[in-house]
Amino acid sequence: MLKRLVIGRAKRSEELGETLLPKRLALPIFASDPLSSVAYATQEILLVLTLGGLAYLHFTPWIAGAVVALMVVVVLSYRQVVHAYPSGGGSYEVASTNLGPSAGLVVAASLMVDYVMTVAVSVASGVDNIVSALPALADYRVEMALVFVALLTAINLRGVRESGQAFAAPTYLFISGVLIMVGTGLLRYLLGDAPVAESAAYGIEPDPGDTHLQGLALVMLVLRAFSSGCTALTGVEAISNGVPAFRKPKSRNAAATLAAMGLIAITMFVGVTTLALVAKVHITDDPCRLTGLPGDCSSYIQRTVIAQLAASVFGGENSVGFYFIQAATALVLILAANTAFNGFPLLASILAQRRYLPRQLHNRGDRLAFSNGILALAIVAGLLLWAYKANVTSLIHLYILGVFTSFTLSQTGMVRHWNRELRTETDPAVRRRHHGARVINATGAVITCLVLVIVLATKFTQGAWLAVLAAIVLFGMMRSIRRHYDTVSAELAVTDPRSEMVPPSRVLAIVLVSTIHKPTLRALAYARALRPDQLEALNVAVDRDASNELQRQWEHYAIPVPLKVLDSPYREITGSVMDYVRSIRRDSPRDVVAVFIPEYVVGHWWEAGLHNHSALWLKSRLLFTPGVMVISVPWQLSSSARADRPAARAPGSVRRGEPTRARTSKDVSMHR
Amino acid sequence: MLKRLVIGRAKRSEELGETLLPKRLALPIFASDPLSSVAYATQEILLVLTLGGLAYLHFTPWIAGAVVALMVVVVLSYRQVVHAYPSGGGSYEVASTNLGPSAGLVVAASLMVDYVMTVAVSVASGVDNIVSALPALADYRVEMALVFVALLTAINLRGVRESGQAFAAPTYLFISGVLIMVGTGLLRYLLGDAPVAESAAYGIEPDPGDTHLQGLALVMLVLRAFSSGCTALTGVEAISNGVPAFRKPKSRNAAATLAAMGLIAITMFVGVTTLALVAKVHITDDPCRLTGLPGDCSSYIQRTVIAQLAASVFGGENSVGFYFIQAATALVLILAANTAFNGFPLLASILAQRRYLPRQLHNRGDRLAFSNGILALAIVAGLLLWAYKANVTSLIHLYILGVFTSFTLSQTGMVRHWNRELRTETDPAVRRRHHGARVINATGAVITCLVLVIVLATKFTQGAWLAVLAAIVLFGMMRSIRRHYDTVSAELAVTDPRSEMVPPSRVLAIVLVSTIHKPTLRALAYARALRPDQLEALNVAVDRDASNELQRQWEHYAIPVPLKVLDSPYREITGSVMDYVRSIRRDSPRDVVAVFIPEYVVGHWWEAGLHNHSALWLKSRLLFTPGVMVISVPWQLSSSARADRPAARAPGSVRRGEPTRARTSKDVSMHR
Repeated sequence: MLKRLVIGRAKRSEELGETLLPKRLALPIFASDPLSSVAYATQEILLVLTLGGLAYLHFTPWIAGAVVALMVVVVLSYRQVVHAYPSGGGSYEVASTNLGPSAGLVVAASLMVDYVMTVAVSVASGVDNIVSALPALADYRVEMALVFVALLTAINLRGVRESGQAFAAPTYLFISGVLIMVGTGLLRYLLGDAPVAESAAYGIEPDPGDTHLQGLALVMLVLRAFSSGCTALTGVEAISNGVPAFRKPKSRNAAATLAAMGLIAITMFVGVTTLALVAKVHITDDPCRLTGLPGDCSSYIQRTVIAQLAASVFGGENSVGFYFIQAATALVLILAANTAFNGFPLLASILAQRRYLPRQLHNRGDRLAFSNGILALAIVAGLLLWAYKANVTSLIHLYILGVFTSFTLSQTGMVRHWNRELRTETDPAVRRRHHGARVINATGAVITCLVLVIVLATKFTQGAWLAVLAAIVLFGMMRSIRRHYDTVSAELAVTDPRSEMVPPSRVLAIVLVSTIHKPTLRALAYARALRPDQLEALNVAVDRDASNELQRQWEHYAIPVPLKVLDSPYREITGSVMDYVRSIRRDSPRDVVAVFIPEYVVGHWWEAGLHNHSALWLKSRLLFTPGVMVISVPWQLSSSARADRPAARAPGSVRRGEPTRARTSKDVSMHR
Repeated sequence: MLKRLVIGRAKRSEELGETLLPKRLALPIFASDPLSSVAYATQEILLVLTLGGLAYLHFTPWIAGAVVALMVVVVLSYRQVVHAYPSGGGSYEVASTNLGPSAGLVVAASLMVDYVMTVAVSVASGVDNIVSALPALADYRVEMALVFVALLTAINLRGVRESGQAFAAPTYLFISGVLIMVGTGLLRYLLGDAPVAESAAYGIEPDPGDTHLQGLALVMLVLRAFSSGCTALTGVEAISNGVPAFRKPKSRNAAATLAAMGLIAITMFVGVTTLALVAKVHITDDPCRLTGLPGDCSSYIQRTVIAQLAASVFGGENSVGFYFIQAATALVLILAANTAFNGFPLLASILAQRRYLPRQLHNRGDRLAFSNGILALAIVAGLLLWAYKANVTSLIHLYILGVFTSFTLSQTGMVRHWNRELRTETDPAVRRRHHGARVINATGAVITCLVLVIVLATKFTQGAWLAVLAAIVLFGMMRSIRRHYDTVSAELAVTDPRSEMVPPSRVLAIVLVSTIHKPTLRALAYARALRPDQLEALNVAVDRDASNELQRQWEHYAIPVPLKVLDSPYREITGSVMDYVRSIRRDSPRDVVAVFIPEYVVGHWWEAGLHNHSALWLKSRLLFTPGVMVISVPWQLSSSARADRPAARAPGSVRRGEPTRARTSKDVSMHR
């Protein structure tokens, strides 16, 4: 019941086609991550640079320029991917096709780690922006973050298409809001009335370790700032992974969406960064390094860069414009996490289909979403947010490593792809196009590899090692899972159907009996109906008195089946039965032993706790014995009939277990 | 493996007789609770009286006298119980036999609550005495308490008898230690060199609510002190519950042990209380009400009364005598909790046998102890210690309510018992004895009822309400469990054995098929071997392509069983199968449907996670359908054979599932 309320009614498999996305919905769904990272990319650059005080802020335009150039390269590269691989799978597909399954798995593992980080970082940053507008909520960061993850999970369990509609409006509001803010701010600057951030008057003392940096140390600081700025590139991936979800023509639509996303993201990023410099936003990872603060540094809540800009442009933190920008930013960040909720389960499902992950991840839920993948993502991201107290700056150190690993490998794969194409292609026009594409992808590969090295060098000791470790563990896990599935399917494969269908020479039946009641008698009746070659009842004498009483009653009722009693000095049933069955098999290895277990079924979970579970344990152990079949003969207590009765369902609700065709009322009454 | 290490090898049922106890072991096992309560009973009296400062300490001898009188009455009363009911069951037995099952359940519920409290209070007090000797451990109270509970659990899971031996020495050391301390102290007093407690010089300011008490308020304070002092009486119960564990003659031995215990306890209690007054121990529930402290009150760790006495008698807190007394006290208190570890599982087992509790509580474990009861007690007591931060004074408010409820009801029951005996007894000598016993029990009933009212009145708002609530919940739970068992056994009872054994007219067999592999072929072969009246294979088309492929292969292999394919637009198997089975049953209600489920069995728990559990879910749902038998046909993967192979067991170890007779090496190799 609760499940229906949260998730909605089950969908038929044929409804899958309906969930394809038009471009205007695909953009917010797949691109809200790179777009929203505008909200923190500039800020992360400034946070690193101000480790050295205000002295190095003049590097900002150069760093931002490098990030923009990188983004152009990556977007161009991925447009080639989208065209070459319209079936989706994105970087994973590209890497595994062109560089082999291991490279594909490396990409897959890194992407999965980064999807988790996307959720964590975006939600944490969204919460930051909410706190910037409503400082009273500062103490509830973690709780808010977890609530948002739970909401996203519920929304996604309801299915892709509905989430697209829910997410389009905030994304477009955010884009227009930021562009209006940047436009207004720069216009005011040109008119000589430049906006001034609330922190413009504060100085920043350098971090003790980062004063008067020179030479290599300064280069490292700038590179670290660049690494942090590269968070703007996360999620570009998502569109190329999601090509199959686009409407036809899939590749063309995906490429167009990618280009639009790149343009919008670059415009916003450049605008926000320029405005931050103009308005002199002074932000630091430790408010106690700020000088000129009016009060105590520990109680000062630094606003995010976006918040400071909105306040300065629109006239203070009580203006409508400020609240609008904060609301849109927070919303789009929370929803950016949704990119991962689309990408992660899709990737997991592809991997599960290829048997690198448990096959449950390939099952579509009632609403046609990959429910298990969604839940896995939510749980891990929730744990991270809890462990890192929803702190963006701590979380961001674990981020983007996976993105650049997959960039590098997929671009390298693309170069190989074009090489192969060129080997067979003869049409000069096509060859020219392929050559051009190869140049783009080669450039992309070299540059993203360079960035990967920079990120690794500057972030490894700051927390990135954990992301690396997680990716390695995932990689190893996926390989062993694949190995396991391969072993099992090789073992199960039919080699000689004729001999494998040869029936056993005889069926020897045993009915387990503890006491004489209706379930026992029914089991005996059913066992006789199957006419086995030999039939006996078996009692394990855990309690000698009870066993004697059983034998007495057996004679009294004149039950026409021989009763055998086994001694069990250690008061335990399973081992005695297992051993007896094995001894039969030993005497006649070509026969099969059918073990009948009378069971009674109760209706309520708490009732189940009141009965021994020896039957369950015994059944699970017997399954390990060769040449055995285990036959449960249930006897339904009246409470179980109530629990199973279809009429007990809420009217109009559709449950798992709903029949495949209409049930007549006669049927219902029959099973009461 | 871990289980064997903690618990030891399994015991045969016949070894049960060996665990009977001689008196010298029965005393420490069953009486360590009332004996050890000497360690805190005096202290709790003083703690209440000093709420009014030092002004009311002169009531101490009167209160102690009342407690001693009460103890005499209770011990005398229980000697009658032990003689009249040699089969054990103690107060529960007496109350349910004479006052009806409901009164018995009230007693049982209160006793169970008090057993839990015995563990909590004794362990907490033991930890207090350790901290008194080693103040550095003050921060680890809760952790220490939980470790002790875990130790007791492990010891008890190993079986009663061994715990008796482990516990005898500390109890006797404690008794002799305290008696020597009291003797030495009083001798020094008589010689004019009275011992002086470390707190003798400190004054105590009255609690703001308890200054200059007069009239009713003063009476209430004294009564509260008396209530707290009554903790000395807890556990007297235990001997009468444990009569069956004594050696023969059981009743006489139990009565003698009871008398010995009463004498020793009274001597120790009077001695410690007298010495505490002589040495002027000034103790308070809030150290900050102490005046004349050298340092800060918040860092002052008050020693227990026993610790202060030992230090003053034996020459300071570095003397050997001090450490000896503290060690013995702590040990005996921790072990007093063991009384409950003996009593609770025994009572739970009796209640389970009478179907008031889940029958699992009546099963003896590998070592013949009632393992489930021991674990239940340990978990609840551990939670209480954790929730109350192992604070004796908070815990003690929940205590002794149950004890006095059961005292009152069982003594009332005894009066009825003698009335009934007197109705038929004619021998004047026996009648005289019965009359005497009735007077004793009637006195006991009236006095303990009075104390119960006093305890309820003075402690209810201080936390005792929780104990009352717990007892009421337990009472209700036990009644519903009994009702459930009664309903079930009425439903299952054989009424007409002949008609209940009439076999179904036909057996219609269905083999569930998802794909063609060895397990499927084996299931088909077994199903054919049973020669059902009708046999078909059934496939649920969750994935249309896979289903078509299956049909193609079915023809290719020329499998001689018809294949039926069911549509399942909601991608789910259980409902479709259930509905199909129901439709068969509807068409021919007198037939039985045999559902064959091919399964493959993996060896490692992590492998199980990689395969769908739809079979498990389907089986559990099918059991709810009338007229069905569910047949699992297992196919063992090679990894499962490794997991099941007996040779994989550690050499020499005995496991649950150990065969009833020796296994030949031929047998082992057969099942590889």
